[in-house]
Amino acid sequence: MVDKKLSGAGLRGQEAGETALCTVGQSGTGLTYLGYDISELARDSTYEEVAYLILYGELPSGEELDKFCFRLSLLRDLPQELCATLESIPATAHPMDVLRTGISMLGNFEPEGDHDRQYEVAERLIAASPSIVNYWYRYSHEGTRIDVDTRAKSTAEHFLRTLIGEVRHDLFVRVMDVSLILYAEHEFNASTFTARVCASTLSDMYSCVTAAIGSLRGPLHGGANEAAMELIRTFEGPEDAVQGILEKLSRRELIMGFGHAVYREADPRNVIIKALAEELSSLVGDTKLFPISCAIEKVMWEQKKLFANADFFHASAYHLMGIPTKIFTPIFVISRMVGWVAHVMEQRSNNRIIRPSAKYIGPKPRSFTPISDR
Amino acid sequence: MVDKKLSGAGLRGQEAGETALCTVGQSGTGLTYLGYDISELARDSTYEEVAYLILYGELPSGEELDKFCFRLSLLRDLPQELCATLESIPATAHPMDVLRTGISMLGNFEPEGDHDRQYEVAERLIAASPSIVNYWYRYSHEGTRIDVDTRAKSTAEHFLRTLIGEVRHDLFVRVMDVSLILYAEHEFNASTFTARVCASTLSDMYSCVTAAIGSLRGPLHGGANEAAMELIRTFEGPEDAVQGILEKLSRRELIMGFGHAVYREADPRNVIIKALAEELSSLVGDTKLFPISCAIEKVMWEQKKLFANADFFHASAYHLMGIPTKIFTPIFVISRMVGWVAHVMEQRSNNRIIRPSAKYIGPKPRSFTPISDR
Repeated sequence: MVDKKLSGAGLRGQEAGETALCTVGQSGTGLTYLGYDISELARDSTYEEVAYLILYGELPSGEELDKFCFRLSLLRDLPQELCATLESIPATAHPMDVLRTGISMLGNFEPEGDHDRQYEVAERLIAASPSIVNYWYRYSHEGTRIDVDTRAKSTAEHFLRTLIGEVRHDLFVRVMDVSLILYAEHEFNASTFTARVCASTLSDMYSCVTAAIGSLRGPLHGGANEAAMELIRTFEGPEDAVQGILEKLSRRELIMGFGHAVYREADPRNVIIKALAEELSSLVGDTKLFPISCAIEKVMWEQKKLFANADFFHASAYHLMGIPTKIFTPIFVISRMVGWVAHVMEQRSNNRIIRPSAKYIGPKPRSFTPISDR
Repeated sequence: MVDKKLSGAGLRGQEAGETALCTVGQSGTGLTYLGYDISELARDSTYEEVAYLILYGELPSGEELDKFCFRLSLLRDLPQELCATLESIPATAHPMDVLRTGISMLGNFEPEGDHDRQYEVAERLIAASPSIVNYWYRYSHEGTRIDVDTRAKSTAEHFLRTLIGEVRHDLFVRVMDVSLILYAEHEFNASTFTARVCASTLSDMYSCVTAAIGSLRGPLHGGANEAAMELIRTFEGPEDAVQGILEKLSRRELIMGFGHAVYREADPRNVIIKALAEELSSLVGDTKLFPISCAIEKVMWEQKKLFANADFFHASAYHLMGIPTKIFTPIFVISRMVGWVAHVMEQRSNNRIIRPSAKYIGPKPRSFTPISDR
């Protein structure tokens, strides 16, 4: 790590506000949503339960959950004008650019207006985001106009059905569901902080979420699971992978999917997604991706004492379900949408515009020279 | 003002990074771009000179300026697919939502890719933003498909020609030019800071600018000149205005266009735009808007010791040129685009991801209850 001039560069360690939504690494390892440990939520709940918890502050009763899921199921269809716009975006586009544009476009047709409607808009955004990315993907890559009004019971099922069509195994839906739980919320990460800065001007929710997508698109934020996949698929087997990683480390190359800006000892999400990746690997008869991933994890720990973070085993898990690599970061958007909208509403509830200062390092005052004298 | 719980709420007074682009209120009143005082720039330069200064760090020579203006003139046309999308957005949409969507959409067709092309993309964004807003406005409001490839020599002329058609007076172009200079850059305001947070993930420039537009859309940030216009037009004359303002103040209503988060004594941009609004008022034979504006400025100072900021006389200036009120904030975007892209490039040049912490105020750790027991 290179020392930067400012001790507070990147506002690291500086409190930029308050949140009741999440703790990250308070004991060095943990992650909680509204006080609930991520391991318990991943094992015993569903993404919709977690989304309800993050939006409304408490876990839902059975009836509340049924109503919530039903509302989401009605909110997945897209306006015709939005579909037309998505159809005009080529297959070569970056899927995060497509999502950013699709969400922004939706704001023209269904503006938030008064913030009284904020929960309605929040649910719409959670429900519609998988439709946007998959409508574009299937049209641009296969020429298929899919029906996004699936009325699927869960976000995971809706996502898989619209992207892949028939879902071959129940385990696929469960893995997708857990993945959405794991990525749903993570305190003041850069995309969430972007959403809160935008929210602090009292802008509308589409603006805040569009802004957050732009930040998640950056290679220092989202995108690590895609990079991990690109790495893993270059190897033929575990021995080859160990050799390859050692060579990369000797060349001081960065290996994506390891270590974390906040967690010090481990990423609590890794053990969860790793176990599911192993189950998937058995189910589909994979003899390559999962063993290679384990070999890389082992050598990274032995050589660098770096632990696999949430992104690393997500790569093989998604790939084993047949999800195209370029859709990995959009899944992060679909999941994190709930965190973003909850942070927007929390910022609004006790708001002051976020307007820091800057240290000036530019030219001293100087006199203007007319262009004829330059 | 209500006291907030956090002393550092909104990061006020906290340095979130370094900049060489701008100082705001260092002497309590001043504004400098790269060391040049705003009054000198507004009096003796053009928007393109200022844009060049902010992008490249020095005022251009005559030849550099000619080349820069020529490049911009070639970058104003829009892709057909973008025009089609703009045509599908109704006249009732918020123009800032349209701009946000249009800029985001452009990123799909002309992605930045490697940051080596950042200056090219920056110039494209400066040149294309007036085309986007005016193409949509004229089509949705008048059914006219305008030719945005005007090859106009200046941004001000391009903007006025595409919005209003024939420009009746040279003074109109000059006022628009000065207005674009005044709004071009303003340090770590909320929209610029949004762009920098996004840039700190190493995301692309379209994402950063799209995010910034979302923040500028908020009523606490952009939009004050629109609100000032709505206020001014409710009055019949200066006496009526004084009476009306006194009543509003007695009801503790907020009067938009007065005071500033950073400036303490005056906004150095006010005297400049006020003088131009007066010239315009004489030219077009206005006997109402400018006198009313002056009366409001006077009573606000007498009653509250609040000075008119840059936005207040912009309202009458824009209105006297025939610019629809809903296009006022988009002009802010067109101008500030240069500040945003310059800050994005500055952030990239010495980057660390902006990831602050949060103070946790949520529930203590609690055990998960299965849904059957809730």
